[in-house]
Amino acid sequence: MADYDVLCIGNAIVDIIAQCEESFLVENGIIKGAMNLIDADRAELLYSRMGPAIEASGGSAGNTAAGVASFGGRAAFFGKVSQDPLGEIYTHDIRAQGVAFDTMPLSGRPPTARSMIFVTPDGERSMNTYLGACVELGPEDVEAEKASGAKVTYFEGYLWDPPRAKEAIRLTAQYAHAAGREVSMTLSDSFCVDRYRGEFLDLMRSGTVDIVFANSHEIKSLYQTASFDEALAAIRKDCKIAAVTRSEKGSIIVRGDQTVPIQATTIRELVDTTGAGDLYAAGFLHGYTQGRSLRECGDLGSLAAGLVIQHIGPRPHKNLKHEAEQVGLL
Amino acid sequence: MADYDVLCIGNAIVDIIAQCEESFLVENGIIKGAMNLIDADRAELLYSRMGPAIEASGGSAGNTAAGVASFGGRAAFFGKVSQDPLGEIYTHDIRAQGVAFDTMPLSGRPPTARSMIFVTPDGERSMNTYLGACVELGPEDVEAEKASGAKVTYFEGYLWDPPRAKEAIRLTAQYAHAAGREVSMTLSDSFCVDRYRGEFLDLMRSGTVDIVFANSHEIKSLYQTASFDEALAAIRKDCKIAAVTRSEKGSIIVRGDQTVPIQATTIRELVDTTGAGDLYAAGFLHGYTQGRSLRECGDLGSLAAGLVIQHIGPRPHKNLKHEAEQVGLL
Repeated sequence: MADYDVLCIGNAIVDIIAQCEESFLVENGIIKGAMNLIDADRAELLYSRMGPAIEASGGSAGNTAAGVASFGGRAAFFGKVSQDPLGEIYTHDIRAQGVAFDTMPLSGRPPTARSMIFVTPDGERSMNTYLGACVELGPEDVEAEKASGAKVTYFEGYLWDPPRAKEAIRLTAQYAHAAGREVSMTLSDSFCVDRYRGEFLDLMRSGTVDIVFANSHEIKSLYQTASFDEALAAIRKDCKIAAVTRSEKGSIIVRGDQTVPIQATTIRELVDTTGAGDLYAAGFLHGYTQGRSLRECGDLGSLAAGLVIQHIGPRPHKNLKHEAEQVGLL
Repeated sequence: MADYDVLCIGNAIVDIIAQCEESFLVENGIIKGAMNLIDADRAELLYSRMGPAIEASGGSAGNTAAGVASFGGRAAFFGKVSQDPLGEIYTHDIRAQGVAFDTMPLSGRPPTARSMIFVTPDGERSMNTYLGACVELGPEDVEAEKASGAKVTYFEGYLWDPPRAKEAIRLTAQYAHAAGREVSMTLSDSFCVDRYRGEFLDLMRSGTVDIVFANSHEIKSLYQTASFDEALAAIRKDCKIAAVTRSEKGSIIVRGDQTVPIQATTIRELVDTTGAGDLYAAGFLHGYTQGRSLRECGDLGSLAAGLVIQHIGPRPHKNLKHEAEQVGLL
């Protein structure tokens, strides 16, 4: 029996979230909808121009781990914080959600990562991430028993930005596959795909990655095509399962010849899209590791994504197991 | 002409907010709905037991200042933080809202104050406040030109908990009255009223305070009566204006013989009552300092309170000026 359902690996980031007008993004050279990497100086500058904010633990794979735990799944997380107040907040929040998190924190500089997230009136989020302590994640942080003992390992494409995290991923994937487990990843961001296209394709084609999560922009970037159908046909051949989200159009899951369309859930008000993809992956992976059909996996993903975009912040405010039970999905 | 519409004085606190079940309050000896004062050790213990949280700048009078600024009013704030990461967050948020905030921060210990706020399924918040740097606020922090230059000074009854803040209040009130301004306070919390009943009554009866904000529990505690009507009759005689909030029943404003009942606004979902009273005061004081009728002041208060209780966190997520314009109140 597996010790964990899902092991997530990602940049451990505290989000600093504020609303802004469209013009703010233009004036400050922020690419809308993207994850913009910034250094410490730009972080200080942008913060001085940012409106009143709230802080919440985030990071793509960390959000997914929190989501899996909220569904009642057994989740673990690898990610690097520093021993500072934001690191304490990050560690508290992910453990308090029930996620096993034991990566050794840095004792000094750089500080815990933070991402300034600007949410425009259309609910879209534009992220500005200072990676801080995340640059120190490396293969020495791989806990072998968790890597071997999780039904599915899930990591974010963003981990190709810090220098040695990819070594941690490759080592974890070796442990996982040696134990007969599966490995999944999210393509994270179309600009991230653009930075690491060749390596991401190699991860898939070499079988290092079995299951791929992406949105339509990311798969089009991956295959450098303007055609969603063309990209979908290509990714179908490059991995065992791909789950591709399409915002309000729902998602499409492909496995070999199978094509499973999933509807988005009806929402009351779109407030902040931060965490939508992460929580879709959480719902999918929770269903998948419980042996559910692809349809059920997708519906659980839609449910979780639909809930997280109705409030500010990247992690669920409601208990996802309870919410899924209420609509008969669990 | 006045330099500011409203000067607010209060404990400068970062809120750490999580949801919990009713049983958690009982098991941890937390008085529901109240502000529980805690020391550093208990803060650590409660945090270890707290669920995943979000952080947001708070503090009663700070929330009111942010609300006044969001309505488009000119607001200033006195309050003490330390030079640490939570202090930086607090300072950023209140300034970014447009509030003038120049109180000198502490350079060392104690750290910036934080309040762990547990929100139960009924939306009620129970606060656990470690006062930290707030205990150092004193008369040396009174900026004479702001005290003289604000149409209304507003302070929280909570300031009787730290040792020397009351001296700052008395000095500020002297400056304000010498300049022909008005002074207002909130009774803050029924337990706080119980701690300082005599002093609060003296503030009102001596004319140090002109306008009093309270909820029904607080005025009943003030006059040690179970009868709301009796308490209302008493407070009518003890100050120029009293605005008494009654949760979903709205509020009642009394001035001499006048009695103005105000309806609560209709809300979609009660999520978190944190900040309700603070934002009511913000709406009222914004209207009052713009020369509006008591009815309009109350309606602005209801609008702001109704908005803040529909999301997690103590300060408005929407621009209050815009919201008030949408419903024809401004």
